[in-house]
Amino acid sequence: MTQASAKFIVVEGLEGAGKSSAIALIRDFIEKHTGLAPVCTREPGGTPLAERIRDLVKIADPSDPLCDESECLLIYAARAQLVANVIKPALAEGKWVLGDRHNLSSLAYQGGGRGLMPLVEAVSNATLKGFKPDLTLYLDLDPKLGLLRAAKRGELDRIEQQAIDFFERARATYLKLASEDERIVVIDASQTMAEVHKDILAVLQAMAW
Amino acid sequence: MTQASAKFIVVEGLEGAGKSSAIALIRDFIEKHTGLAPVCTREPGGTPLAERIRDLVKIADPSDPLCDESECLLIYAARAQLVANVIKPALAEGKWVLGDRHNLSSLAYQGGGRGLMPLVEAVSNATLKGFKPDLTLYLDLDPKLGLLRAAKRGELDRIEQQAIDFFERARATYLKLASEDERIVVIDASQTMAEVHKDILAVLQAMAW
Repeated sequence: MTQASAKFIVVEGLEGAGKSSAIALIRDFIEKHTGLAPVCTREPGGTPLAERIRDLVKIADPSDPLCDESECLLIYAARAQLVANVIKPALAEGKWVLGDRHNLSSLAYQGGGRGLMPLVEAVSNATLKGFKPDLTLYLDLDPKLGLLRAAKRGELDRIEQQAIDFFERARATYLKLASEDERIVVIDASQTMAEVHKDILAVLQAMAW
Repeated sequence: MTQASAKFIVVEGLEGAGKSSAIALIRDFIEKHTGLAPVCTREPGGTPLAERIRDLVKIADPSDPLCDESECLLIYAARAQLVANVIKPALAEGKWVLGDRHNLSSLAYQGGGRGLMPLVEAVSNATLKGFKPDLTLYLDLDPKLGLLRAAKRGELDRIEQQAIDFFERARATYLKLASEDERIVVIDASQTMAEVHKDILAVLQAMAW
């Protein structure tokens, strides 16, 4: 492993698509192949400040409802902080980074789901300036199934309580953007966990190591 | 007073320029002329959520230094929240709004001071979509004088601790934008307070009431 080959891999998907177990699988794979555990991030969050921003996004305050534009800008504030203070420094040191969500989530949820694509694209371009994951694995699942799974885990947060068509629009945006970018791979998350993991490992093994 | 004539007036200026006493003067003037005290806002802040965002911007955390892009995005998240939940509803009810800072501060500090004008303009346009104060009074003062005054008031916050050339760039941006927009009036804040207040009242009296 030379430092230059450190990569930024992201797992994306709607609630209940199986991101957590996919991330555990990928973390182990990276550790085996590089000898070093990757730096794991989650978004929004991943730095002390970004976690405080995450709290503002996740908690519903009926006396001061979070407007869609603020939600989007808070998420990008957290992302800018995470990229500057965690992701870029880690990659520069030759450490792999494994992300639970990144920019594609904003394009799907705030851009597609909320209908704020012009704001999301403007902020995304001006903030990230072309910085992108080397590989994004998008776990694709019918949102009805995903929310059923997520609800079984416990109480749904502010974003998980959106109407189903919000998630339908987010899914359509995920699929559209994946079809336009070879660095985004769609995994069929309606399969059994064993089949999903087999597909993920096949993608990882096909990467240039 | 008909509801349609409610106006949004903003006071701008570098630290120590005399914004607080100018705001008190304008608040009294509006109350006398409309029979109703204006809704007073401050930025960043002015809603429960926006005040929590303000805390994130004002407090320096050496373990997770706030990057310039995050600072900018947090300020716009707070502004979007304030415009949606306070300023626009007040104006729609026929209430005047008096702001301690608004968008011009971001253009001056983050755009001019930090050199982030492309990000600021992209976010400003996509968030505010042309929403603007009816009148902005910019209290212009040499930053050296202003910081001397601000330091006398007590400890300087994270932004007030910037180097002097940051404030010089912010001032230059304020003056440039004021020269391009007839709704921004420059007040010479190096004068005595009595003279400054006389100039402000002359501007207010010249407004269409």
